[in-house]
Amino acid sequence: MANSDLKEPIDVAEYLFKRLHQVGIRSIHGVPGDYNLVALDYIPKTGLRWVGNVNELNAGYAADGYARIKGMSAIVTTFGVGELSAVNALAGAYSEYVPIVHIVGYPSTISQRNGMLLHHTLGNGDFTVFEKISSNISCAMAMVNDANSAASLIDHAVKECWLKSRPVYISLPTDMVQKKVEGARLKEPLDLSFPANEEEKEDYVVSVVLKYLKEAKNPVVLVDACAIRHRALDETHAFIKKSGLPVFVTPMGKGAIDETLPNYGGVYAGDGSNKGVSERVQASDLVLSIGAIKSDFNTAGFTYRVSQLNTIDFHSYMVKVKYSEYSGVRMNGVLKKVTEQLGTLSPEMGSYTPNNDIPSKESSSTDPTITQAWFWPRLGQFLEKSDIVITETGTSNFGIWETRFPKDVQAISQVLWGSIGYATGSCQGAALAAKELGIKRTILFTGDGSFQLTAQELSTMLRNDLNPIIFVICNDGYTIERYIHGWEASYNDVQTWKYKDLPKAFGARDEQIRTYAVKTKEEVEKLFGDKDFKDQESKCLRFVELYMDKEDAPAALKLTAEASAKNNAKLE
Amino acid sequence: MANSDLKEPIDVAEYLFKRLHQVGIRSIHGVPGDYNLVALDYIPKTGLRWVGNVNELNAGYAADGYARIKGMSAIVTTFGVGELSAVNALAGAYSEYVPIVHIVGYPSTISQRNGMLLHHTLGNGDFTVFEKISSNISCAMAMVNDANSAASLIDHAVKECWLKSRPVYISLPTDMVQKKVEGARLKEPLDLSFPANEEEKEDYVVSVVLKYLKEAKNPVVLVDACAIRHRALDETHAFIKKSGLPVFVTPMGKGAIDETLPNYGGVYAGDGSNKGVSERVQASDLVLSIGAIKSDFNTAGFTYRVSQLNTIDFHSYMVKVKYSEYSGVRMNGVLKKVTEQLGTLSPEMGSYTPNNDIPSKESSSTDPTITQAWFWPRLGQFLEKSDIVITETGTSNFGIWETRFPKDVQAISQVLWGSIGYATGSCQGAALAAKELGIKRTILFTGDGSFQLTAQELSTMLRNDLNPIIFVICNDGYTIERYIHGWEASYNDVQTWKYKDLPKAFGARDEQIRTYAVKTKEEVEKLFGDKDFKDQESKCLRFVELYMDKEDAPAALKLTAEASAKNNAKLE
Repeated sequence: MANSDLKEPIDVAEYLFKRLHQVGIRSIHGVPGDYNLVALDYIPKTGLRWVGNVNELNAGYAADGYARIKGMSAIVTTFGVGELSAVNALAGAYSEYVPIVHIVGYPSTISQRNGMLLHHTLGNGDFTVFEKISSNISCAMAMVNDANSAASLIDHAVKECWLKSRPVYISLPTDMVQKKVEGARLKEPLDLSFPANEEEKEDYVVSVVLKYLKEAKNPVVLVDACAIRHRALDETHAFIKKSGLPVFVTPMGKGAIDETLPNYGGVYAGDGSNKGVSERVQASDLVLSIGAIKSDFNTAGFTYRVSQLNTIDFHSYMVKVKYSEYSGVRMNGVLKKVTEQLGTLSPEMGSYTPNNDIPSKESSSTDPTITQAWFWPRLGQFLEKSDIVITETGTSNFGIWETRFPKDVQAISQVLWGSIGYATGSCQGAALAAKELGIKRTILFTGDGSFQLTAQELSTMLRNDLNPIIFVICNDGYTIERYIHGWEASYNDVQTWKYKDLPKAFGARDEQIRTYAVKTKEEVEKLFGDKDFKDQESKCLRFVELYMDKEDAPAALKLTAEASAKNNAKLE
Repeated sequence: MANSDLKEPIDVAEYLFKRLHQVGIRSIHGVPGDYNLVALDYIPKTGLRWVGNVNELNAGYAADGYARIKGMSAIVTTFGVGELSAVNALAGAYSEYVPIVHIVGYPSTISQRNGMLLHHTLGNGDFTVFEKISSNISCAMAMVNDANSAASLIDHAVKECWLKSRPVYISLPTDMVQKKVEGARLKEPLDLSFPANEEEKEDYVVSVVLKYLKEAKNPVVLVDACAIRHRALDETHAFIKKSGLPVFVTPMGKGAIDETLPNYGGVYAGDGSNKGVSERVQASDLVLSIGAIKSDFNTAGFTYRVSQLNTIDFHSYMVKVKYSEYSGVRMNGVLKKVTEQLGTLSPEMGSYTPNNDIPSKESSSTDPTITQAWFWPRLGQFLEKSDIVITETGTSNFGIWETRFPKDVQAISQVLWGSIGYATGSCQGAALAAKELGIKRTILFTGDGSFQLTAQELSTMLRNDLNPIIFVICNDGYTIERYIHGWEASYNDVQTWKYKDLPKAFGARDEQIRTYAVKTKEEVEKLFGDKDFKDQESKCLRFVELYMDKEDAPAALKLTAEASAKNNAKLE
């Protein structure tokens, strides 16, 4: 299409960023590079903010955290070097269903066609290698090489990103950035509603679900990650409120459910469950499992003990009743109708008050050492409504199972992908998203070993005036790995840093930072009671060294690590 | 083969690490992860040292630096998360022909066969995705899934790594680590000699080269990266010493040639050449080009002006005389015979003394500001025999063209791949390799923007008691990018760190570190004269904040950036 045929000509980059703005994105993560610089000029022009991360892996993690809170995010990298540094973060988002638009600044289409020997290439004239790499971890690829198709490729990618809830890849060659496309298309926002299920099939599934539900003596609901990631929380809450059924969450589903509901029962993770929970769930004759990902770390090492004969699985791509599969039926519509047609259930309810109290052994102990068994239940009283809590692969990801959340607390963790270093990057993005949404507190728990991988993302937090509360658990290295193998091995040690000196070294202004070191239970109590520390309106980033024993770990971690070690060593 | 048939049964991991020891590797880079822990136990047992990097990207860069000094290196990562974080570093090594053995700890073969839903997977039961990704940037893949083939797969991969001088990928599932293989194979070291050229063909090429060489009036030699990377420096030096021909290097060939030789003439990079050099080279009627990579940043934006009609190209995979191609003929053998059969040449030699003096405008200036034009020539007098000098993509990669090296100085840069952050990681590996070889000084130049990406590799240097000299050029952000686009754009700014406070925050002991900040030429002079600072036997890591103007850049950078910007913007 010639430019003169366009009703409202607009540059490709402007079109792209306006689409991102329309779907709710307000900040763009990434690192500048010579193939994306001109595109970056459009970010402020379209009402967006450039985050300016310190490196691309951190930017990817941050985009992941931002997307989990805001619903979607975007990251800009440069060809080859930049995009490849972000691959691990985007693979994690692919694995855990986090929607991130990855925009890669490409050399001009002319340079590509001529196979020019440019920097950031493999030196072999092949400009398709990095696209091939990312296609493994993207649910759509938009290779923008032509102005005529640019707008529709971009629209398709953004829409797929939202609907499939996974990363998409958009290439933006330097000579495409300012090509003109039809701006009038922007008047029609993208349709982001999920395609409706085939009605007859959906009704059939609903009737089957209702039949078994009404026959069941003691049904329970088990909510997992995909209920969050595939945007089925509203339908899930409506169902559990109306049905009144006991509801449990998996580790990856932690934060999905209002834990102040009277029918909330705690975390189910097989042998790693909250006290009393596994007996309740495993005794049920019908488990309504919503959005399950039955991975090793989500089930305390495959100790999940619920028979498929007692299960109805609700997924984004199918519903499965016992062994009957209903493919292509999305859970959202089914759950909605099931709730509408529920009528009265009269299940055995029993008692399902979650038990996240501090174990009596811990509360009566006079030992001042901060133990994992004491800390995580205690944390529940420090948390406040609407907090965002981020935990890292390691002791905190398992410890948080024992923390009961106030209403509307959102939890972020990466239980399936489990890339250490994720949490610190993710915290930057989540804190930024929180700021945009008026959420007051973002709280990070990471370990000393994990923190070291992505520590400089602190700098990005400071640069963007973010004020999260950061706990670095100082326990001398990779405790989770010690439990798997190498209890005394030096490879599980890390260099001892002066963690709380880092914010200042990263350029924190005096008034921008408060630092703390807590080594005893009493000091934790004092910290949790400190108004300046817990203040929702704080303008300070708060950074805490939290000392725990190297050999201490949450019980669920010990179980899971033991199962991992066994599985690793298994011979035929 | 049953274990009882093995003459000297040995565990797979032990076999692998012993092979790595045999080819000269003494330290293994990487990060522990649960799928590689048992394998790591074999590292000290086989006389190797575990480096323990802070993250995998840094580990990859460090392995690259180590390999450039020691001839080869190895890195261990864990499945999925760990290996993907290293992909950018390994792609860089692939691009620039650096031999790195990448060992990836895999889930057990049984878990893989059963498609178990393990952490560090994409959740889809596909265990081949990451292997596919790495196959794009590896010259050999050894998927060790069976004890019978393990030893030969490992041998093949290690050999290919050396001969092709590129990364290889070795998977090591947890249940393979301790399987038994034939240890007796280790008595025969791997044959790492390059396959000889076909004799008749080689002799023919040699005669053609000699014919043109003898006819030429003013031939010159131009040495580039692949002469280093494909191990042809001995043959190159023999040739230039015997022939006495004027010899020049490209930016990527910097450090390849003894710059104290009387026939060394300086850096040729088209319009970005050292003073007087482009006239000399471009006036030549025969350029013997050894190991050329004519990329944009290696030619000051494709301003290389040598006709193919006046060129003989020597490569690892072919020799090309004018337009006649002799494929499959490796340069090493040809150069050796050409030197042997050279006889007497009587070319016009002319004057080719390299001019790396401080420009008179700079030396006569009374302005105390440290300028790029002043600093890099001045650095030449600070350098000492056998120093290792690492420069970063940015001002230092271009500035170093103006620094004349003492004998045996080795230079490390990443001119083709150009991933910022590389140099700091690479410095760790190079400094470790230097320590193993008894080389006294490793000197890093990086920029403040680049340093931020991988800053925590300082921690690994401290952990391993390495004592490099580190210069962080403090010039307020990405100066190289400003010259391409966005002169005043905030995306080219970075957060201002207190750089020299970082070593202490990263746990440096008092006696382990000296820090400096230099802001004037006089302070540079004082620093360069400071015995404690320049001391070859120093037990201290020396960390310098070197302040330069945000708008200042080496002339060659300005040229190259301008060419890049034009190329990016070019429309059809």
